[in-house]
Amino acid sequence: MPLVVTGSVGFDSIEVPSGEKREHVLGGSCTYFSAAASFHGPVRIVAVVGKDFTDEQRAVLAHFGVDTKGLEARDGKTFRWGGRYHANMDERDTLYTELNVLGGEPPRVPEEYKDADVVFLANNPPRVQLDFLEQFPHKRFVVADTMDLWITTARAELEQLLTRIDGLVLNYDEAELLSGKQNTVAAARDILEKGPRFVVVKKGEHGCLFVHREGIGALPAYPSERVVDPTGAGDSFAGGMMGFLASHDVDDLGRFDAVYAALVHGTIIASFTIEDFGLGRLQTLKRQELLERLEAFVKMLRVPGL
Amino acid sequence: MPLVVTGSVGFDSIEVPSGEKREHVLGGSCTYFSAAASFHGPVRIVAVVGKDFTDEQRAVLAHFGVDTKGLEARDGKTFRWGGRYHANMDERDTLYTELNVLGGEPPRVPEEYKDADVVFLANNPPRVQLDFLEQFPHKRFVVADTMDLWITTARAELEQLLTRIDGLVLNYDEAELLSGKQNTVAAARDILEKGPRFVVVKKGEHGCLFVHREGIGALPAYPSERVVDPTGAGDSFAGGMMGFLASHDVDDLGRFDAVYAALVHGTIIASFTIEDFGLGRLQTLKRQELLERLEAFVKMLRVPGL
Repeated sequence: MPLVVTGSVGFDSIEVPSGEKREHVLGGSCTYFSAAASFHGPVRIVAVVGKDFTDEQRAVLAHFGVDTKGLEARDGKTFRWGGRYHANMDERDTLYTELNVLGGEPPRVPEEYKDADVVFLANNPPRVQLDFLEQFPHKRFVVADTMDLWITTARAELEQLLTRIDGLVLNYDEAELLSGKQNTVAAARDILEKGPRFVVVKKGEHGCLFVHREGIGALPAYPSERVVDPTGAGDSFAGGMMGFLASHDVDDLGRFDAVYAALVHGTIIASFTIEDFGLGRLQTLKRQELLERLEAFVKMLRVPGL
Repeated sequence: MPLVVTGSVGFDSIEVPSGEKREHVLGGSCTYFSAAASFHGPVRIVAVVGKDFTDEQRAVLAHFGVDTKGLEARDGKTFRWGGRYHANMDERDTLYTELNVLGGEPPRVPEEYKDADVVFLANNPPRVQLDFLEQFPHKRFVVADTMDLWITTARAELEQLLTRIDGLVLNYDEAELLSGKQNTVAAARDILEKGPRFVVVKKGEHGCLFVHREGIGALPAYPSERVVDPTGAGDSFAGGMMGFLASHDVDDLGRFDAVYAALVHGTIIASFTIEDFGLGRLQTLKRQELLERLEAFVKMLRVPGL
């Protein structure tokens, strides 16, 4: 089924605890999401870049077979973000954010995309996410991400969004902020009351919690021994999850079993993303490697003798 | 197989984020461990208490069928600890520690205990743990816990201990401190190099990581919606794990499969412990409830469709 992601494409400057730095790394939510989703099937992106976005970067997206008709190039510079990771890799400081073309009007959704069944609204102001939603008249399944900034500054619009989506993915701290509840299960249940059928709480190296109207799930992360750069882990996770769902032609994409299985796919692709800077690891990743790690992880979850 | 735990029995003063406080709660590592282990079979404790330890408290241990021949009563007061939990329940401040009789000589291991096959050395100075070890000539399987204080102040003795045990259980932060490695998998692998066959890294609400010479495992915690008091969760976890192993008459208790299954039992009993102050929940817990939650958890781990 046609899968679309709306979000950002940008250039990241990343500093990791070893002191190693990378400048001008192709990043952004759409980028990581679409690269991850591409292992399951076609994916289309809706995002905006500046004139500094070159053919070299387009070639990276092309490598993943990403449909970039919705990647609008405008006068100005592409979105830039700089961050520095703390020693444990689970926290980071934002060093700078330059919105650039991301500060203007949201990109238009191309006519050819309007038949999309499956939509992922990556982090954006909730007002923009709501506007995007209007542009997909045939949508059957919508999942959104958000961030602390919108929970604090645009709560009313975010709550409106929550009544119109199937699922929400968000970070551990954000679940607490949105719900006002310290216990993660209670926080997720509180968010369900606001509208969605399910909530996925991303906990980085600690995996995720999945609370659905029909049940509850929890997954550890894949036990990675070497984490080079956690940037994009969450967006890859969402890409693997949504790509898996969109590639399955079932009536109800949002049912508990389907989403739970999809989270395992998200977990595994994210575990590859963090093995190199930017899209480095996903660019070299073979489908066979992905399947092998998936199988090892599923085997790990099936505790023997119980 | 006979199971012995060496550690502490004490009185805790506990303050939780709701503001609720409980004074003089029966606690200590041996107490939580033995109550949890008792759901699988007999358990013996080696610990010391003061003259303020009453028949009422002995009756609680008797309720769980704990063998208290190794619970030595001495002149003086029982060990006391006071703590206050932070809002997220995952961190706490120690308000006071009164060693009292715990500051004297370690208790003697009764002659009747010396046939023990399975020994858990709960947190104690490594020198004391080493001395206890000497007193179990028939030991076949030994697991130890430790804490940050000993990693910092008694590292040489702790490293000596590590060469003489089958497994180590410790907290997330402690694994980092002991290994000097920030990545938990790398930290656990580093600790394996120091001697044990396996390391269990306890991560509280995030479950545990299990690194064994024969493989790796990771479990989420049981998704608890209501956490009243996390005190004793780690010791109950160890008790459920060791109780399960000791109740299985197999040749090699330390093999990957057996320990991994045991960690699931530890996870579930700990999820009950935190539902009330002290041993409150374990005292009312029915075997049937335990089995039902275990079954639900195992079902949750088996992600459908994969």
